Amino acid sequence: MSTSEFQVTGMTCGHCEMSVREEVGQVPGVEDIQVSAETGRLVVTGTDGVEASAVLAAVDEAGYTAVPVG
Amino acid sequence: MSTSEFQVTGMTCGHCEMSVREEVGQVPGVEDIQVSAETGRLVVTGTDGVEASAVLAAVDEAGYTAVPVG
Repeated sequence: MSTSEFQVTGMTCGHCEMSVREEVGQVPGVEDIQVSAETGRLVVTGTDGVEASAVLAAVDEAGYTAVPVG
Repeated sequence: MSTSEFQVTGMTCGHCEMSVREEVGQVPGVEDIQVSAETGRLVVTGTDGVEASAVLAAVDEAGYTAVPVG
């Protein structure tokens, strides 16, 4: 298991969080998602094989932009 | 047919507009809905029997607060 953090731009409300959660939840290996519209922080926990690029693509699919943090 | 305007507080994005649209669309007699998160304006067109109180209740159900305008 590993955890990755991302900063997401453009989320404004709980509906936005839900959109990100739904898309990122479809990335293979993802087992937990913490996301906050207020801070823009997205924390993804999953198996070691979870690709950051897949998470970024999922956020993009939801309609927002993310960058890896740390 | 008649048109009523409302000012809605709390919408921040297109998802919010969609929530309001979905709830207000269930009010009997409503035939057209214009809603903008940017301005907060909600314009409801429907048969003459559409009750403003029913529109206000629908907006509340969506999680926002509205007041009649004009």
